[in-house]
Amino acid sequence: MAGKDVPVSPLAPKRQPKVPPIPGVRFATAEAGIRYKGRQDVWFALLDQGTQVAGVFTRSKCPSAPVDWCRENLSQGSARAVVVNSGNANAFTGLKGRDAVKLTAEIAAKAAGCKPEEVFIASTGVIGEPLDATKFKGVLDECAKRAADGPWIDAAKAIMTTDTFPKALTRKAKIDGKEVVIAGIAKGAGMIAPDMATMLSFVFTDAPIAAPVLQALLSKGVKGSFNAVTVDSDTSTSDTLMLFATGKAAARGVPAITEVNDIRLSGFKRALNSILLELAHLVCKDGEGARKFVEVRVTGAASARSAKRVALSIANSPLVKTALAGEDANWGRVVMAVGKAGEPADRDKLDIGFGDIVVAKQGARAPSYDEVAVSEYMKGDNIVITADLGLGRGKATVWTCDLTKAYVEINGDYRS
Amino acid sequence: MAGKDVPVSPLAPKRQPKVPPIPGVRFATAEAGIRYKGRQDVWFALLDQGTQVAGVFTRSKCPSAPVDWCRENLSQGSARAVVVNSGNANAFTGLKGRDAVKLTAEIAAKAAGCKPEEVFIASTGVIGEPLDATKFKGVLDECAKRAADGPWIDAAKAIMTTDTFPKALTRKAKIDGKEVVIAGIAKGAGMIAPDMATMLSFVFTDAPIAAPVLQALLSKGVKGSFNAVTVDSDTSTSDTLMLFATGKAAARGVPAITEVNDIRLSGFKRALNSILLELAHLVCKDGEGARKFVEVRVTGAASARSAKRVALSIANSPLVKTALAGEDANWGRVVMAVGKAGEPADRDKLDIGFGDIVVAKQGARAPSYDEVAVSEYMKGDNIVITADLGLGRGKATVWTCDLTKAYVEINGDYRS
Repeated sequence: MAGKDVPVSPLAPKRQPKVPPIPGVRFATAEAGIRYKGRQDVWFALLDQGTQVAGVFTRSKCPSAPVDWCRENLSQGSARAVVVNSGNANAFTGLKGRDAVKLTAEIAAKAAGCKPEEVFIASTGVIGEPLDATKFKGVLDECAKRAADGPWIDAAKAIMTTDTFPKALTRKAKIDGKEVVIAGIAKGAGMIAPDMATMLSFVFTDAPIAAPVLQALLSKGVKGSFNAVTVDSDTSTSDTLMLFATGKAAARGVPAITEVNDIRLSGFKRALNSILLELAHLVCKDGEGARKFVEVRVTGAASARSAKRVALSIANSPLVKTALAGEDANWGRVVMAVGKAGEPADRDKLDIGFGDIVVAKQGARAPSYDEVAVSEYMKGDNIVITADLGLGRGKATVWTCDLTKAYVEINGDYRS
Repeated sequence: MAGKDVPVSPLAPKRQPKVPPIPGVRFATAEAGIRYKGRQDVWFALLDQGTQVAGVFTRSKCPSAPVDWCRENLSQGSARAVVVNSGNANAFTGLKGRDAVKLTAEIAAKAAGCKPEEVFIASTGVIGEPLDATKFKGVLDECAKRAADGPWIDAAKAIMTTDTFPKALTRKAKIDGKEVVIAGIAKGAGMIAPDMATMLSFVFTDAPIAAPVLQALLSKGVKGSFNAVTVDSDTSTSDTLMLFATGKAAARGVPAITEVNDIRLSGFKRALNSILLELAHLVCKDGEGARKFVEVRVTGAASARSAKRVALSIANSPLVKTALAGEDANWGRVVMAVGKAGEPADRDKLDIGFGDIVVAKQGARAPSYDEVAVSEYMKGDNIVITADLGLGRGKATVWTCDLTKAYVEINGDYRS
C-alpha cells in the first residue's frame, strides 16, 4: 500500500523544486475511493482549447485498456483533459475494461466541456480487477469547479502507488528569444500490492508547438531517458508518457512551431530532454528497495544499438545488481553480463571500471587494481560502471538501481 | 564458500540414487588446495582408449579459457581424460589463463599416458584470479594411481561450489536388445563468493557410439533440458556439458552406432534425454535461495520458438519470481511477462493457470476463479504455471525457481 510504513528512498532529492503554473493547464485532485481510503487517488487536468498532444506507450503486447484508448485518440492531435487514477490499472479486464475507459472519458468530457476523444486516461494499480468508473461521477465535475494552476506536487502525489516520494520538475527554455516553461510529473516503478510496476509521466508546456512536432521530439527524447532506465527488466502493461503543449505562450509573442527541423527549437529540445532525463532518473532512484543509483556506460561497441543492448544486459543482470547491493566491485559479473548479451564482444579487448577506477584491462585484472580504493568507492550512493568493448565507436548509457532484499520483500512478502 | 552453514535446499531429493560403474571410466578426487582448504577440489577421470566425446558450451561471447580449450579439441572426437577443479574458474585471466589450461593438460596427459589434446578441462569458482596450475603437479599422478570405478557421489561433490547437495544420476537403456548404462554428474547454479554461477555436467556411457552421433544427440537433448532451465537469467562464462562414450559395451555384443538415424538408438535417446532433464532439474532445485521448483508451460503460441521465448520471459521475470516466493497467485505479472516478451500475443485470447486451476480466461479473471484454492496450491514446493496464448500450436516448457531474499543474501551480502 502506497507509502505506508515504507521509508522514503535514501536516493530521494533533498528538496522539492518549485514548479510554476503552465498557462492553459488547470487541475485538481480528489478522493474517488477507487481502492485506497483516505488519500487523493484521482488527478483531473483541464487543458485550454488548442492544446496539442503527443504520447509514447508501453511496448507490451498486452497493453491496458487506457493505453489502447490513448493510442487510438492520439492521431487527432488535440487534448482537453487528462484523468489519472491510482489504485486500479484497469488492465487485463477484458470488455469491462474498455467499457470502464469509455465511461470515464464520457464523465470527464462532460465535466470539461469537450468530446470524449479529447480526454486522455491513465490508470495504475492492481490489475485484473474491474475498475468501477461510476466512482468518477460527481468527482470529476467537482474537480473541474475548483481546478487551479497548482500545486503540481499534489498532482504528483495523487498518481503515486508505492512511490516513496512525489516527482515534479520544471524547466525554462527560449524559443526565438522568448521564454516558455515546462512542467512534468512522474510516478515510478513502484509496486502496488498485489500488482505490477508502472511508469506514468505527464509533461506540459505553454509553447505553441504542433502535435506532429511534439510527437517527434517526444519519440526521440524518450530513447535516452525513460527507455534508458530499468529497475528490474519487467515492463508494465500501462507505461504511459504524454506531452501537452497549450500554445498559450503565443500570446507573449512566441512563434508557432510547425516543423521539427525549425532551428528555433534547439533550446526547447534541450530543456525537454533534460526534464525527461531527470524524471526518468527520479523513477529509477525510487525503484523498489533501491539503495544505489547506478549509471552504466558502454563504449567501444560495434554500434550504438549494440552498446545499448550490452548496457541493458549489465543493468538488468540480477548478479550485477546484487553485487552492487553488497557493495562488491564484482567486475567478473560485469564480464558475464557483457558475454551473455549476444552482441559482438572480445574478452581480450574488454576494459571494465567502477567510477574512474580501472579494474580490468584487456581481458584480465588491471595491474593497477586497488581493492581498497574500489571498495571505498562502492560504498557511495551513486555508482558508475564503465565497460569499453574495444571494438568500435558505438556507445550508450543506461541507469538502474541495485537489487536488495527490500525488493524481494516489497514484491514477494506482502502476504506474510 | 561452498556448503558452509548453508542449509541443504528444501527441494533436494530425499535420497541419492546408486550410480553404477561405467566400464572404461575410472576416477579419483583430491585436495589440490586451489582455493578451498580441507575439501576435495579436483576430480580426475581416466577414459579407456577409443572413448568418443561430444560437448556443448556456454553461448557467452566471453567464455573462459577451459571452454576455449575444450571447443578446440572437440573436433578430433576422442578423449582420454577429464580434469575438473572447483574454487577457481580460470575465466577472464587473459594469456595467463591459456597458459594455465595448457599446463593442466600437460600434467594430466602425463598422468593419463595420452596426448594433451585428449584431455578435457573445466574450472569453476572465482573469476579474474589467475589459476595456479602447478598445484596439479603430483596431484593428478597420484589420482591416476588410485583411480577406481566409483563412487560417483565423490566426483559430484568435488565439482561443487555453493551447491547444497551433490548431483549424480544413472539410467539404463537397450541397444539392439542389449543393455548399456549411463551415469551423469552435475554442479549447479551455485554461487561461489565472490563470483558467478556456473553449470557443469559430465555424462558417461559404455555404449559404442561414434562422436558425430553423440554430438547430434547431445545438441538436440540439451534444448529441452539444460537450455530450458533458468535460475536468474544470467549466463556463466564457463557452462559446460560433455558426453563421453567408452564403447566398452561392444564387448558384450552391443553393435557400434555410427549413424544418428539408426533406429536401434531410440531407447538410448530416451534414456539420455531423461538423465539430461533430471540433471537440469536438480540444478534448478539447487538454485540459489530456491524454495520452489517451478514449471512454466506455454501453449498456443505462434511457433515453438516463440513459445520458448514467452516461457523464458515468464521464468526470468523478477516480479513473477518474487510473487512465487510470496506464494501469491499473481497472474497479472504472468500477463505482464507474456506482454513484454515481444512475441505475438493477444491479451484477449490469453488463458493463465496455476496447476490445474484456471485463473484467467480470454483476457480477464476466470468466472470460476477461486482465491482460496489457488492460495492453497501456491503453498506447495512444486508449482506449474500455464499460459495458453490462443494463437497457434507452438508450445514449450521451461523450469525455474523462485526469487527469495536468500538469493540476494547469497549474492550480495557476503561482504557484511
